[in-house]
Amino acid sequence: MRVQIAAVGKAPKGWIAEGVAEYVERLKTLLSIEWNYFKTDEQLAVFVKKQKEVVLLDPNGKTVTSEAFSQLFHQKMVQGGATVTFVIGGAEGLPESLKKERTLLSLSELTFTHQMVPLILVEQIYRATEIEKGSGYHK
Amino acid sequence: MRVQIAAVGKAPKGWIAEGVAEYVERLKTLLSIEWNYFKTDEQLAVFVKKQKEVVLLDPNGKTVTSEAFSQLFHQKMVQGGATVTFVIGGAEGLPESLKKERTLLSLSELTFTHQMVPLILVEQIYRATEIEKGSGYHK
Repeated sequence: MRVQIAAVGKAPKGWIAEGVAEYVERLKTLLSIEWNYFKTDEQLAVFVKKQKEVVLLDPNGKTVTSEAFSQLFHQKMVQGGATVTFVIGGAEGLPESLKKERTLLSLSELTFTHQMVPLILVEQIYRATEIEKGSGYHK
Repeated sequence: MRVQIAAVGKAPKGWIAEGVAEYVERLKTLLSIEWNYFKTDEQLAVFVKKQKEVVLLDPNGKTVTSEAFSQLFHQKMVQGGATVTFVIGGAEGLPESLKKERTLLSLSELTFTHQMVPLILVEQIYRATEIEKGSGYHK
């Protein structure tokens, strides 16, 4: 399985990068994570439009439980031929043109700092795979 | 202002501790954060019952926006004489006896790993103070 994460901005540094690396390492036997950082919304949009199964993280998206996230994640994996793309908006949110007819999720009603979103996302992806396995991690 | 964080378990280590330290540093001119880690639910309960204004983080709590969190946080600060206590439950959640007649909040419908909760909490506290100041951080 392959997860693509696409965002406008720069790759996380310091402790956030360390946290992300911890989950990438835990996931490596199951799936690979590719990071795509773009300078502008336009570049992001060009990339996203080429992808088959896309989940947009957006404050206006619906909030879900980790169980529902796991279900959605695995369903998209099947539909996407083992590839799913997650898109993280910039400080101004995602362009409206991208949002049409795509799945919008919100990680929380709370606003999280933009830098921390990749960290929360990879932990949820790891949790999703553990829920699917039926392990005790998510309990 | 003083924030007390009480939890069962051990203090975060590694990159989570670094992240927490970053927000504690940013907050230090405004408020101090005290950490209280307990071995058992019983010890936690004894501590919590002595505190005036308490917010319990619990999966069954209500979810709020960062703006509503900020409002609640500052209201509790006033009511608590400049001290608020946040309580983080263990893997099994918080004891029922503590939940009665206290404010229950959930950070998200998603379940986060127990270790990451203090990090998400201190970022929201920082965000709450920035919202109160009217700075651009939370935009």
